[in-house]
Amino acid sequence: MPAPEASLPADGAAAGCGGSAAPPPHLAECIYLDYNATTPILPEVQAAMLPFTLEQVNINQSTLNTTTQFGNPSSSHAYGRPAAAAVAAARASVARLIHCAPDEVYFTSCGTESDAWAVWGATAARRAELAAAGKLPHVVTSAVEHPAVLVYLQALADEGLLTYTAVGVDAEGLVDPAAVQAALRPETALVTIMHSNNEVGAIQPIQEIAEAISGSGALFHSDAAQSIGKARVDVDVRRLGVDLLTVVGHKFGAPKGVAALFIRRGVHLPSLLHGGGQERGARAGTESTLLIAGLGAAAEAAARDLPAVATHMRATRDALQIALLSAFKGTAEGGHGGAGGTRVRVNGPADGRRRLPNTLSISVAGLRAGKLLAELADRLAASGAAACHSGSGDAGAASPVLRAMGVPPEFAAGTLRLSTGRYTTLQEVARAAALILRAVAAQGALVIGGDTAD
Amino acid sequence: MPAPEASLPADGAAAGCGGSAAPPPHLAECIYLDYNATTPILPEVQAAMLPFTLEQVNINQSTLNTTTQFGNPSSSHAYGRPAAAAVAAARASVARLIHCAPDEVYFTSCGTESDAWAVWGATAARRAELAAAGKLPHVVTSAVEHPAVLVYLQALADEGLLTYTAVGVDAEGLVDPAAVQAALRPETALVTIMHSNNEVGAIQPIQEIAEAISGSGALFHSDAAQSIGKARVDVDVRRLGVDLLTVVGHKFGAPKGVAALFIRRGVHLPSLLHGGGQERGARAGTESTLLIAGLGAAAEAAARDLPAVATHMRATRDALQIALLSAFKGTAEGGHGGAGGTRVRVNGPADGRRRLPNTLSISVAGLRAGKLLAELADRLAASGAAACHSGSGDAGAASPVLRAMGVPPEFAAGTLRLSTGRYTTLQEVARAAALILRAVAAQGALVIGGDTAD
Repeated sequence: MPAPEASLPADGAAAGCGGSAAPPPHLAECIYLDYNATTPILPEVQAAMLPFTLEQVNINQSTLNTTTQFGNPSSSHAYGRPAAAAVAAARASVARLIHCAPDEVYFTSCGTESDAWAVWGATAARRAELAAAGKLPHVVTSAVEHPAVLVYLQALADEGLLTYTAVGVDAEGLVDPAAVQAALRPETALVTIMHSNNEVGAIQPIQEIAEAISGSGALFHSDAAQSIGKARVDVDVRRLGVDLLTVVGHKFGAPKGVAALFIRRGVHLPSLLHGGGQERGARAGTESTLLIAGLGAAAEAAARDLPAVATHMRATRDALQIALLSAFKGTAEGGHGGAGGTRVRVNGPADGRRRLPNTLSISVAGLRAGKLLAELADRLAASGAAACHSGSGDAGAASPVLRAMGVPPEFAAGTLRLSTGRYTTLQEVARAAALILRAVAAQGALVIGGDTAD
Repeated sequence: MPAPEASLPADGAAAGCGGSAAPPPHLAECIYLDYNATTPILPEVQAAMLPFTLEQVNINQSTLNTTTQFGNPSSSHAYGRPAAAAVAAARASVARLIHCAPDEVYFTSCGTESDAWAVWGATAARRAELAAAGKLPHVVTSAVEHPAVLVYLQALADEGLLTYTAVGVDAEGLVDPAAVQAALRPETALVTIMHSNNEVGAIQPIQEIAEAISGSGALFHSDAAQSIGKARVDVDVRRLGVDLLTVVGHKFGAPKGVAALFIRRGVHLPSLLHGGGQERGARAGTESTLLIAGLGAAAEAAARDLPAVATHMRATRDALQIALLSAFKGTAEGGHGGAGGTRVRVNGPADGRRRLPNTLSISVAGLRAGKLLAELADRLAASGAAACHSGSGDAGAASPVLRAMGVPPEFAAGTLRLSTGRYTTLQEVARAAALILRAVAAQGALVIGGDTAD
């Protein structure tokens, strides 16, 4: 079972968090522990977007003079040029964040599109050559990828356009580089393995996988949606050795609706969206200057605040983990498997260096997690599984991630995904733990502390 | 040659335009006649987006109390629900605009994506069935479609995934419904014809095409990017008889980065973007609540203001056309073809009911349009061809639209696309005409008025 990594601040107050403003007031009414689903827009991101939305505004009593810049970045006149300049500046900011050149950054509309582009482009690039040999392009992925990868691969396989192999993971949710290597075929056009998992926070051995597959001729893509701004070390595309990397703005303080794909210089990746010549002919569609400006500012903030925010996330996540596990006394000592008498488990790598600092996936056998989350929906914001799976009650029960990790169904259905962020306070974490424990006890799912709830 | 349709207001001032605020101040510095490229964000759209961006703002001296609503619409807790409600409200607004049910509206990231989804989905739906018969899905389109359609069709044809036929247009840029009908094959999965053309403003006979192809088994898609908020009669999907329709927000006052696809109830359209269950499982990717809220408000404004805005657009466009043509005296009487001694032509339908009220495509033989636009770039914002083609000097020379219409190369290279909008004033139009005429004269391309410029 993963152990807390950091000692808590002695005074129980939230750790300092470089550059962040006070949380929006309504956060106090409902504790937000769903940062893996989405994040609040940062104040500096709001400021960066203003020239593209409002004529003149007063924010927090200070006036910002601005002009509405609405031009199309593809226009070469006076309206187009500032828009093009804003897009260029944001591109440079994202490049600095992931340590690449600006001309290796391509803006898209969401992580799903970035992932789809990687899959489509890598396989399209080899389709004709392989068809001549009577073969389809092949993709290697893992069983715990985001649906943007797994569902798309299955759809294209159903269409007869590719084949793919999803390698399994161990009980901690980790991919074995040797298994990826073993799955390679001469016709493998792409290997796509996420940087970290959205549900259990497992940080995959991307660098080792890159080494294992080097020379195979396959492109290597990684979806870093959950890692940017969180991972212990920053996401450096050169160090990782990836050809393609997905960056998703709304996971680190940008608005929803904008993302990027890193494409290493020299890689030929056919387009997913064809048409106008935007993004140097690679991704058609008029650029969303407003959101791209926001993504650029979020990238600057993420690069600047990474150590402080990651430390704060870890402190709050660990406090939550301790509060929950210490209450489940006498039941939580069984370790990972949840075998024998153990009725509580924490999912994900035991080694803190291999788990996102903000993510706590905790399973209580017999708990109806969907019911608990629905009951607490106005006081605690959290997930059963990823937000994109939710809405179906005990979503954890159907989580392919937990299934791939071998989490028994009675635990999977009782899984809460709690994820902290830069505005999370230790007070909130303590209140959240109390709310959860009361709701667990009310379901009679577990004997907690000295009370018999059943 | 198209004739002006409406008499001008007697006082020469801008016609009233329901609901629109005064133009942003910097519009006075550089006259914006590029509304077909993109449009300013409307004040009510800005207001609708505020709850999703700013904590508290003062706009134009009045304070707006708001909270930052950053939740993921897929989350069922207190943060997700307002976001989901905002998306639902915007969906209803778009539905009212195009006269369909809310559950027939699907949000996308841009017109290019909406068009690509129509092409991909319609052909994917029939690929397996046709492959069994040794055939590829077939698409019928026109030679004047947006690159989002034409370039994508060519890319998929190059991949061996479909075949397509692009029917020609007449000298006015109009598609003949009989030609579309004649191009149908048993394996035709899709007919896609734009509602109106972005360069010359030709409004296609969509209803007649729908009738001509009915019963063929092909789906019928129309890209209405340029028509919403402009066309003389509103864009009504039932009346038009389309199965699929593209709506693009930034062409009518919403920000760039959001669009929609109408999918008629009962039509099965496989996804382009697969993954999470967003948009009722049809379009994966976390919804851009901020931009979708903006699109909803723009749809409301477009529906409300349509007659007034269209009248205003026509008045300003006609004033511009009169000012330019009357200066080209002795040279402009030759009609459409530009044959003989005529050195000026207006491109597009002569019948005003068949041309967008805001669009003026005017060609001067021998003019270097790219040079003129570059020289005027700080005083006049206009295009040579569509914005998505620009950046390459005399873009009109390479315009497939003008080529398909049979516009001679020396006219095509001298083409200006001028498009008016709700903030355009008659004073601006007069100044723009003077700027253009002076620049044309300086190039010696044409004898203007009584002066000999050469």
